[in-house]
Amino acid sequence: MNAMKELWEYFNEIMRLSYIGALLSWDQQVNMPKGSVKGRAEQLALMQNLIHSRVKSDKTGKLIKEAEKLESLSEIDLAMIREAKREYDQAIKIPNELVAKIAKISSLGHIEWEKAREKSDFSIFKPYLEKIIKLRIEFAEKLDKGPTLYSTLLDLFEPGVTYDYILKVFNGLKPKLVKIVNKLNSMSDKPNQSILKKHYDAEKQWQLSLEIIKKLNFDFNTGRQDKATHPFTTSLSSIDTRITTRIREDFLPDCLFSTIHECGHALYQMGFKEEIHDTLLAEGCSMGIHESQSRMWENVVGRSKEFWTYWYPIFQKTFPENLKNYPMEEFHRSINVVQPSFIRVDADEVTYGLHIILRFELEKMIIEDNLQASELPELWNTKMEELLGIVPPNDALGVLQDVHWTSGFGYFPSYSLGNLYAAQIYNHALKENPSLPQDYEKGEFSNLLNYLKEKVHQYGKIYRAPDLIQKITGEDLNPDYFIKYVEDKYYPIYGI
Amino acid sequence: MNAMKELWEYFNEIMRLSYIGALLSWDQQVNMPKGSVKGRAEQLALMQNLIHSRVKSDKTGKLIKEAEKLESLSEIDLAMIREAKREYDQAIKIPNELVAKIAKISSLGHIEWEKAREKSDFSIFKPYLEKIIKLRIEFAEKLDKGPTLYSTLLDLFEPGVTYDYILKVFNGLKPKLVKIVNKLNSMSDKPNQSILKKHYDAEKQWQLSLEIIKKLNFDFNTGRQDKATHPFTTSLSSIDTRITTRIREDFLPDCLFSTIHECGHALYQMGFKEEIHDTLLAEGCSMGIHESQSRMWENVVGRSKEFWTYWYPIFQKTFPENLKNYPMEEFHRSINVVQPSFIRVDADEVTYGLHIILRFELEKMIIEDNLQASELPELWNTKMEELLGIVPPNDALGVLQDVHWTSGFGYFPSYSLGNLYAAQIYNHALKENPSLPQDYEKGEFSNLLNYLKEKVHQYGKIYRAPDLIQKITGEDLNPDYFIKYVEDKYYPIYGI
Repeated sequence: MNAMKELWEYFNEIMRLSYIGALLSWDQQVNMPKGSVKGRAEQLALMQNLIHSRVKSDKTGKLIKEAEKLESLSEIDLAMIREAKREYDQAIKIPNELVAKIAKISSLGHIEWEKAREKSDFSIFKPYLEKIIKLRIEFAEKLDKGPTLYSTLLDLFEPGVTYDYILKVFNGLKPKLVKIVNKLNSMSDKPNQSILKKHYDAEKQWQLSLEIIKKLNFDFNTGRQDKATHPFTTSLSSIDTRITTRIREDFLPDCLFSTIHECGHALYQMGFKEEIHDTLLAEGCSMGIHESQSRMWENVVGRSKEFWTYWYPIFQKTFPENLKNYPMEEFHRSINVVQPSFIRVDADEVTYGLHIILRFELEKMIIEDNLQASELPELWNTKMEELLGIVPPNDALGVLQDVHWTSGFGYFPSYSLGNLYAAQIYNHALKENPSLPQDYEKGEFSNLLNYLKEKVHQYGKIYRAPDLIQKITGEDLNPDYFIKYVEDKYYPIYGI
Repeated sequence: MNAMKELWEYFNEIMRLSYIGALLSWDQQVNMPKGSVKGRAEQLALMQNLIHSRVKSDKTGKLIKEAEKLESLSEIDLAMIREAKREYDQAIKIPNELVAKIAKISSLGHIEWEKAREKSDFSIFKPYLEKIIKLRIEFAEKLDKGPTLYSTLLDLFEPGVTYDYILKVFNGLKPKLVKIVNKLNSMSDKPNQSILKKHYDAEKQWQLSLEIIKKLNFDFNTGRQDKATHPFTTSLSSIDTRITTRIREDFLPDCLFSTIHECGHALYQMGFKEEIHDTLLAEGCSMGIHESQSRMWENVVGRSKEFWTYWYPIFQKTFPENLKNYPMEEFHRSINVVQPSFIRVDADEVTYGLHIILRFELEKMIIEDNLQASELPELWNTKMEELLGIVPPNDALGVLQDVHWTSGFGYFPSYSLGNLYAAQIYNHALKENPSLPQDYEKGEFSNLLNYLKEKVHQYGKIYRAPDLIQKITGEDLNPDYFIKYVEDKYYPIYGI
């Protein structure tokens, strides 16, 4: 057999094993009885081992080498070799002992972080964070992707992207964003969320969430939605994608926008071209591009006036006790409140980027500039004041809010890149289909989906994000599209 | 490491792989979207391959050989070696090509059987059945467990049991059962099921089914119930056992007794002693013993007067439109109708055994006495008349009713053995705890469960069924206990 074909089949099997692992994990979060954790943990570990030992095997290395020698390989074959090599390199460069050490300290760190946050006492978490930083630097050194240590870590989530690339983008974003937030914040007639905090029946929210994703063309023939503590999207094969949502009866946006967000991820996973199904390429191009899809549907579409022109009458009929006499215009404002706040996960789409820039700047200093864990709380607060104009009253609302650093560095920027990619891609979509917003008014969303399928989804991981954005829009990632989107949307809402 | 310990660990991993396979299959039946079949089929095949190649590996053979040489092994160690050897022998004796051939013809046969049954035309299925018979005989010859070919096949489901063993039991059962059925059938005041065929709301049935298994001490901390087309029980580890039920709004017993039946299986799977968790011994002793547990809870307990003394008022309150003015006595009669009928799966617990004896006699002749497929339809009808006094008007109601022969021979007898084991074990349970029936009147079922845990469940597959029944009751399997149970229960119901 041709080495290329063999490589495809070999990684097909590895993908199947990882889909099986994904089912173990989906089931644990959606269905598994509470008392069954121990057995499941052993099964998950077993699948991880099976996958890891296949990826780092000599066979993988040999197949890659042989495939690389072949001539006239297709673009997809080349992408496949690139991804296989990426997996293989990481598996052989990082010693098992380092992986085990990181897993152990992460798990301990997670427990101590919980305690620290509860007591708002950074000193509890500090010794663990110090060890984690040390091990993550070692990890980056061993992986040695370059051009810098922090770039190596960023590349894990945004393949092909470097620190300098993101820095340039964020530097373009930061001053403009700060200015906009200040401007919005200075207005007197601000929207507020009180209408969203009334009582909304859980079962009715659930039914509406299903109705919405059906309209958004979520394919129930190869997917399903369930309830779970944390909303997430997972694929159990290229024809089986599942999302979860959660419902709060005292806060309408929680279920509503989680559902649309995860549906955005799912539409991506459902749209890979058949040629790459169940392969290493049947994945999002990067975490940032994945986020661009979920955030485009959630924020750009789902919080737009046109979207609510269609849906608001249905919501009014479903929740007449709250919405019957409440004007659509006001409802639309209530789901688009911009407000500097301490906690990233509660932040709106405008201030969100500033939370990320803060973490990006700190992570760079931690990984490359010898910033000490002990210096973090104060520096965090200084930057919060600089970027958002507010100072956390304690570390639980500051440096201790995220658990992410127990599992790595370099993860946060992708969230913000998602917003930027989304704005730039959507701008192009509008140029090609100027009547998209009018579609939404009629409850019609397939033209946008078809555009995204053609430009983004079908390719999976074939292209790198910087190349994909060039290929689609004809230019590099440019934060000005996001700035323009924010101004066009929020200035009218705030009466500017 | 000690070879014994290594053998335990090696098969631990194999069990984990098969639990993962069980999750793939549970999810397919309970949750999986319709369009996701292809990906799942590939994942299931992959897991099967991983398990099979481990079981038949040289390592398995070597570990067994080394473990067998060890001295002073415990009873559990010896049982473990016996089961490992059983798996290993089958894996190495049956060539992969034969397995593949059987899988292929079974799958084709299944499709053709469906067509044949629909048209009630045996000639459609005949050529496939002929091939299946030939391959199954080859399978038995290769496995060569003995003492006879049919015994070899029976042993797959009832380890340690032979054709002669079952023949002796069935010969003791047959004439007495035929006599009882005739006697009941000749009575003028027969109970009927009309009350059960009124409309019963699905959601209320579902809630009641959960309430019942809760009372029966189904452990929701390590188990759950869902809905599926076919009721079944599966374990995803020794601390994760799941059952399914189905609901018909126009037939109350369907959900009710399926639930109790599967709960009986689940209580068994939940009761293995910790020492054997997640090992080859964490399985039912045999299919017949497993059925004894489900049928004891379903029929002996679930269709008893005492059970309904507690539950009927609750059912009356839940379905007042049907049951408010309907006497408990009559309800109890309606769920205990005995009636010769054509279809095994619809048969009551009394006539059921005769359906099985018919199949047992035919299977013996097919496997050992060169009975031709073409002779089956007529012989089936002759035996139906002899055993149940009725002749199927067509083959769909006769020889074509079961699909089981496409997947093997030797499987049916265990169903009937289940009833017999149940009666004998229950008789002993009553001797040790005479007040059990009074427990049920109070909605108290833990004394019976504790008895079963101690005598049956905890041991899993450590003992063979013939040894277990001896160990519990002090005698061999004796069908007279079942006969006595039937007479004591049904004669009063039929006014004898």
